Amino acid sequence: MNAPSRNLDFFYFFGSGYAYLSVMRIDALADAAGVTVTWRPFSVRALMIEQNNMIREQKQKMAYVWRDIERRAARNGVPFVRPPIWPTDPDQLANRVGIVAQAEGWCREYTLASFRSWYLDGQPLGAEGPLAAILAGLGRNAAEVIGRANSDDIRARYDAQTDVARRLGAFGSPTFAVGSEIFWGDDRLEEAIAWAAGTHPAQRNAAG
Amino acid sequence: MNAPSRNLDFFYFFGSGYAYLSVMRIDALADAAGVTVTWRPFSVRALMIEQNNMIREQKQKMAYVWRDIERRAARNGVPFVRPPIWPTDPDQLANRVGIVAQAEGWCREYTLASFRSWYLDGQPLGAEGPLAAILAGLGRNAAEVIGRANSDDIRARYDAQTDVARRLGAFGSPTFAVGSEIFWGDDRLEEAIAWAAGTHPAQRNAAG
Repeated sequence: MNAPSRNLDFFYFFGSGYAYLSVMRIDALADAAGVTVTWRPFSVRALMIEQNNMIREQKQKMAYVWRDIERRAARNGVPFVRPPIWPTDPDQLANRVGIVAQAEGWCREYTLASFRSWYLDGQPLGAEGPLAAILAGLGRNAAEVIGRANSDDIRARYDAQTDVARRLGAFGSPTFAVGSEIFWGDDRLEEAIAWAAGTHPAQRNAAG
Repeated sequence: MNAPSRNLDFFYFFGSGYAYLSVMRIDALADAAGVTVTWRPFSVRALMIEQNNMIREQKQKMAYVWRDIERRAARNGVPFVRPPIWPTDPDQLANRVGIVAQAEGWCREYTLASFRSWYLDGQPLGAEGPLAAILAGLGRNAAEVIGRANSDDIRARYDAQTDVARRLGAFGSPTFAVGSEIFWGDDRLEEAIAWAAGTHPAQRNAAG
């Protein structure tokens, strides 16, 4: 039997081109299916390096990726501007601020604001000026949040969440998980939500 | 303006797990959209080696891939049996027979029969016994076809078709092309057909 969990773990990296599409789409799809979402920033960069999965060094694939994202955005009614800065956030500060936000309960709002700033407004991700503006817009004390994001505690939590993704078998961003069942890529978001709701055809086959 | 080409180039490799899904789906989708399909075997293996894109050496990704294909097959009503032999066809003979079939006008039928044999019946791809059985089933003289598949002429045509895919920017199998617009992966088949038909939302945006 596949009792629906009704919760979807959403693992994403703040500098991920494809995660943007999911960040913009996941609320409406999850709401429609009665599925809740746990927003979980992780270091896909660490996983890609240790797995020798360096897409950014594969020029044919990278040339394709941005065009594909543009077409997928058009198909899904999501605004698209090719982010002028990529790769970005070398220190992963934007991601660690996401861990602070997760711990304090405002991760979703911060994530949406961060992707809009980087992707649509062309601001450098993780740079202190734009980051402070994002945090101020959310009514947060930027200096305090950034200080916490640089603490050992938050660094350890970021590593621990990355390790959860690692143990699930993740290798890219975004990755969706329902228990131990993982789905990679924005193009699997619908399937992942169906899985959480217990309505994916592969579940019905197993039960039937 | 985007005048629809109404033809889709379908580049695929006979040993590709994801190409199977497209081989099983493409006729119905293309027919419904009024799109013709040109079946074009190519050596994705050559491209992946030269692009340092060796997915088969990434164990996390490979563990995921077969599970993903299984779920996608269930979602699309396509039969699935995990092929017991992969990677396969080290000499790429099954692919070169595809080039013979393409030159002689029976590539689609051969491709369907080849994927069924390898994927669903668990026969070793490109091994002479199963290959001869496939060819006999299509009313072909196996010895003659295999002889031709090993000729310099067919080897050159296989390389040339691989080079067409290379110049389009392909890096994986399947790849769909409408003119110079490429789409990678079975999960982009619907978008590629829409593009050939001139109905993809990104085309409407450009025209509007």
